[in-house]
Amino acid sequence: MAQTKRQGERTVFFETPPRVISSASIVGDMEGKGPLAAAYDLILEDDTWGESSWEKAECKMFVTAVKLALSKLGWSTDSLQCLLGGDLLNQIVVANYAARELGIPFLGLYSACSTMAESLLIGSMLIDGCFVERAACAASSHFSTAERQYRYPLEMGTTNPPTAQRTVTGVGAVILSNEQAASGYGSEIFTKIHITCGTMGKVVDMGITDASNMGAAMAPAACNTIKTHLADTHRAADYYDAIVTGDLGRFGSEMLIELCLDEGIKISKNHIDCGNLVFGPNQDVDCGGSGCGCSAVVLSSHLLKLLETETWSKILFMATGALMSPQASLQGETIPGIAHAVVLERDN
Amino acid sequence: MAQTKRQGERTVFFETPPRVISSASIVGDMEGKGPLAAAYDLILEDDTWGESSWEKAECKMFVTAVKLALSKLGWSTDSLQCLLGGDLLNQIVVANYAARELGIPFLGLYSACSTMAESLLIGSMLIDGCFVERAACAASSHFSTAERQYRYPLEMGTTNPPTAQRTVTGVGAVILSNEQAASGYGSEIFTKIHITCGTMGKVVDMGITDASNMGAAMAPAACNTIKTHLADTHRAADYYDAIVTGDLGRFGSEMLIELCLDEGIKISKNHIDCGNLVFGPNQDVDCGGSGCGCSAVVLSSHLLKLLETETWSKILFMATGALMSPQASLQGETIPGIAHAVVLERDN
Repeated sequence: MAQTKRQGERTVFFETPPRVISSASIVGDMEGKGPLAAAYDLILEDDTWGESSWEKAECKMFVTAVKLALSKLGWSTDSLQCLLGGDLLNQIVVANYAARELGIPFLGLYSACSTMAESLLIGSMLIDGCFVERAACAASSHFSTAERQYRYPLEMGTTNPPTAQRTVTGVGAVILSNEQAASGYGSEIFTKIHITCGTMGKVVDMGITDASNMGAAMAPAACNTIKTHLADTHRAADYYDAIVTGDLGRFGSEMLIELCLDEGIKISKNHIDCGNLVFGPNQDVDCGGSGCGCSAVVLSSHLLKLLETETWSKILFMATGALMSPQASLQGETIPGIAHAVVLERDN
Repeated sequence: MAQTKRQGERTVFFETPPRVISSASIVGDMEGKGPLAAAYDLILEDDTWGESSWEKAECKMFVTAVKLALSKLGWSTDSLQCLLGGDLLNQIVVANYAARELGIPFLGLYSACSTMAESLLIGSMLIDGCFVERAACAASSHFSTAERQYRYPLEMGTTNPPTAQRTVTGVGAVILSNEQAASGYGSEIFTKIHITCGTMGKVVDMGITDASNMGAAMAPAACNTIKTHLADTHRAADYYDAIVTGDLGRFGSEMLIELCLDEGIKISKNHIDCGNLVFGPNQDVDCGGSGCGCSAVVLSSHLLKLLETETWSKILFMATGALMSPQASLQGETIPGIAHAVVLERDN
């Protein structure tokens, strides 16, 4: 029998670490005015992007991001054997319709805002397991589609409590491959990044019921995955240049740092949160960004570039998901969280 | 570099075929009066099962089915490294809350009624890739939760068109392992069944817009996967004792047989559909059963027993999903389908 690739409770190590060879990010107007503006591939001026509904616009963004990531390699959709991904909408309808248009064999995933990490984790296992050679991993969210599905119709003009985060309008797509991309495709592709291991998330619930305080709902799951990951790998938190969470926002990040300290893990020096990076302090976004697209666009633009340009050599990328359902909330349920993680490293 | 396990366009072959060692099925009252009654583990008398909502009842069924499948092996949830699955509700809330209660690392999936096959396909790749040793794959649906989410509140008493199918109230759970179960656990476990290969689905859309005609929406995707699978494996349709679809129902099954004939593939002799098996002709269900739970319960009870007792030696199990979203339908979208497939074989 072949040897297990699992180490500890729930961390898997890749024998031939899958390579991250390309990515693309598309964001909305407001994200395009944020601090990471220069890193995005495409910034929309209008969040309907010429479509008749926000949902159709989000789908167009999803399709375009995957094609854009492929075009940097000079590839078409035929180059991929698998698309993995999802979004926040009911029936992951954005990803489904995008998969229809792209025509790539499709594995639909749902783990709320942890979807980008889930897709990278499963995608890496499929590549390292020799089932596919090349896959696209993508996740999307859209402020206007999410707001009307999860909270209130935008037309109501509801105000937000101070713990509220803003759903990022954005799609991030990453191309994974079992081998290096051939050189000669210009400076936009990646030639030095691979995924070495990953840790599967568990559903964790600390009894949060406030749908405007997602950070608090997700922080315990993030803490659980960090603790397990470090124990499984026998690493200390400072092994990583950055421990990146998806969208805990300001309050959720503070909570995570406290929760980790309670476990004897000090992450205050190297923890960053995509939700805190995506909007600037002058953008009037109470507690930062959120949504599947938040960690997806920050990874696909900013984070991968910092790895490729040798600012960093290794990061723990852990997208965090609040498994929130309006109907379950109405039935008195609390909001559990989940956090899947992958380790991205630069070649030595 | 290790050798690819993919053959043809999108079929993967397992080097050490994962074993199906246990399963459990729980169904509602009406399913319990159907032709497969004797094969189910548990038949509910009341579809709320003592809970305060149908959604909570569906979640309890999901948790109980996984535990029941484990208990046949004398195992606890700690024996598993991964739970893969989903359901039909928004945010796959049933599976999320079930994963919270079970405490097993969780990969949430959504591919509508194709979820059972998607979970078996990914679960098999994870085991054959040596990432996990044992995993549970499960999918659920519930007539009352699905009806109010996808169609009309039950209290309205809406009548159905003749093409309508009835969402199955049921959960099926299957335990996959990298090795045989030790003998001595009685007659309820499986000692002869393994998954040899699988074919990833593509999203296919033939322009169906009628949410009461899911069979027609899914048949083209099923045909696409059958055609690709047979081409990839260089097999003829009669290689299998049965080509099993998930929930095409009566009209959808007729359509699939026609569509396959157009491609030169004759499946009329060995095609069966879980949606046609689950209810009897006297049960006043127009076109058969549907839902994630339909193929999940029929597989977990009837189909696996026919393999284990040597009635069959190999089947193509292909759950079919209609990627239907009420909101997308309101925006004028058509309903695409997807069909993932795995091959289940009995040891020689």
